[in-house]
Amino acid sequence: LNSPVHLSGGYAPPEGFPGSELAEIAREILRNHAAEALQYSELEGQVALRTRIAEWLSADGTPATFRDVNIVTGAKQALDLAARALAQPGDAWMSSEPTYVNAIRIFRRAGLKHLSVSNDEDGTRVDEIEEALARMARAGTPMPKFIYEIPDFHNPTGRVMSASRREKLVAVATKYEIPILEDNPYRWLRYDGSAVPPLGSFDKDRWVIGVGTFSKILTPGLRLGWIHAREDLRRRVMSFKADGGSSALVQMMVREYFHEPDALPRRLDRVTTVLRSKRDAMLRALTTSLGTVAEWSRPDGGYYFWLSVGSGVDTEALAPVAETDGVQFYPGSMYYSAPERGRQQIRLSFAHEPIDRMERGVTILRSHLVGVLSPA
Amino acid sequence: LNSPVHLSGGYAPPEGFPGSELAEIAREILRNHAAEALQYSELEGQVALRTRIAEWLSADGTPATFRDVNIVTGAKQALDLAARALAQPGDAWMSSEPTYVNAIRIFRRAGLKHLSVSNDEDGTRVDEIEEALARMARAGTPMPKFIYEIPDFHNPTGRVMSASRREKLVAVATKYEIPILEDNPYRWLRYDGSAVPPLGSFDKDRWVIGVGTFSKILTPGLRLGWIHAREDLRRRVMSFKADGGSSALVQMMVREYFHEPDALPRRLDRVTTVLRSKRDAMLRALTTSLGTVAEWSRPDGGYYFWLSVGSGVDTEALAPVAETDGVQFYPGSMYYSAPERGRQQIRLSFAHEPIDRMERGVTILRSHLVGVLSPA
Repeated sequence: LNSPVHLSGGYAPPEGFPGSELAEIAREILRNHAAEALQYSELEGQVALRTRIAEWLSADGTPATFRDVNIVTGAKQALDLAARALAQPGDAWMSSEPTYVNAIRIFRRAGLKHLSVSNDEDGTRVDEIEEALARMARAGTPMPKFIYEIPDFHNPTGRVMSASRREKLVAVATKYEIPILEDNPYRWLRYDGSAVPPLGSFDKDRWVIGVGTFSKILTPGLRLGWIHAREDLRRRVMSFKADGGSSALVQMMVREYFHEPDALPRRLDRVTTVLRSKRDAMLRALTTSLGTVAEWSRPDGGYYFWLSVGSGVDTEALAPVAETDGVQFYPGSMYYSAPERGRQQIRLSFAHEPIDRMERGVTILRSHLVGVLSPA
Repeated sequence: LNSPVHLSGGYAPPEGFPGSELAEIAREILRNHAAEALQYSELEGQVALRTRIAEWLSADGTPATFRDVNIVTGAKQALDLAARALAQPGDAWMSSEPTYVNAIRIFRRAGLKHLSVSNDEDGTRVDEIEEALARMARAGTPMPKFIYEIPDFHNPTGRVMSASRREKLVAVATKYEIPILEDNPYRWLRYDGSAVPPLGSFDKDRWVIGVGTFSKILTPGLRLGWIHAREDLRRRVMSFKADGGSSALVQMMVREYFHEPDALPRRLDRVTTVLRSKRDAMLRALTTSLGTVAEWSRPDGGYYFWLSVGSGVDTEALAPVAETDGVQFYPGSMYYSAPERGRQQIRLSFAHEPIDRMERGVTILRSHLVGVLSPA
């Protein structure tokens, strides 16, 4: 009851967990298929599950077969494998900033330097990427080994990259033969409007390495994701997968859960219904409480609001104080490689907490921001 | 029916899989605790499971608390994390050879060089390690960053390291302050005789990083293991764990399976009963079929026979031919960093196949060895 309101990490909404369905599925698999479910799995993942994912990708506009799709133990594992496969310590990766905190951490730990450009309401400034790469090519500077991108409902900004920028990004990557590591956990969590074509739909030469996950569309507790890539890139990435293959039981559970052809749309309908109402509730709470002290734009999908507060606030200093007072959030500085940036930003997740607690959290946050910004 | 007899990989015996018990456990957890089981878990692992493992380690002679124990997604993940945490590309690791093929692969992929000594019926020649380190220290050569060791029912040799060598190994590592990465999947699978004290029982200064797994004592399909180490070493290793924490559901299932205090001994009784009879069956088959063409010693635990055949045989060349003829085995060269070694050795696993198929596999192997060694 007295635990801080958790508007920080990207935890999934427990209201949407299909516990009872997975309970019966797990039981049936373990009773009748234990010899397969409890043994080691193929390193590349089970063909039945890979086939289902390939069908989804194809229907979404990214041509795919099961051969292109391999299973990983969560999307973060894929980022870790890709960093090691595509780059050596001392090499660089490129993305817009702010960007996903765990990508920054994983790539830093792999010894990689971050080359960053900015992003705006249409996503990554691909023109800046193009200029930077052209400059580096002219100067003979070592090029980045991959471009990291979250095109849909970006973490932390919530923005969606425009179709024209997507096309341009793929063209630039293709020109310089630089893989794009596309991290797309939120693409299928859209609450308004319609989908922008995926990077894969522009990707004739297959420079996009797509990373997907079941954490946001099903549940994080199973730890299952996938990569989708051209054979040579897929093999390079998977050669670093050293965990003995992802859990056979979990793969079979997920495959069985998505057995019916309409299982994914039904599941997404359930998840987006829960998340849309939470998004709306947080929007109301923000408008009511923070309208005079912060700015944001409404995300059409995903988990996050990205707030800008006045220049009198240091959100990194505020975060531990606010937590003591009952609300957890992540300060904007977490989403930059350079810690002096993002100090007037806050990421709020609306996915995890029940609506009443979320409202309470925003109210607490208000008391701190108003206190800081308008000293009595 | 016509698939090759699988005496190669370290697959677990399906006869021992507790499918029905895990089915009821999974169902109960998913029905009543979905909010926890399907959410992200702590990166270090769930305290309840860590506590149970610490109890086992302590009872086995390695003092441990839950704080020393962290959960990993299988033992191989721990090897991968440790290699990156303890060493940089270009650094060296040390072990006896032959040694575990996936350790060789994982450490090679981390860019590490292998310094090897030999092993014999009492395990790793610790005297050779001591001499090599003393020589390197005198010469000012960079020391290995860790010593990799499989003290119990070694993979591939099946040997158990003597107590005096264990004590000596820990003393040498302590003297030079080099961590020992102890990989111990088979320690609790003993079919004869009694346990030799663990490395941890000699390890006052805590240079041993213990790696354990549920793959061999319970089932590989869940992908769960642990590390046990001094706080600074544990933190270093875990800082490379980038998979979002191991599956909460799987951790809860394993913890529940081992809920009763006597659950581990009961489980080990079941597993060792199955494996002892398979070990005995393979011993009979080998004695009957290969007595004149190969040498081996009976392993008192674990999964493997390590065969030496006559010098007229190249087992690496033989393996694909034998597979076509219906039996898979791993040639000895897989267990050496230098591929020209181990060419007269074969590793046979008795864990996976039913006894009748295992016997058939040995008979097929005989036809090849006799054919090669005594051309008609």
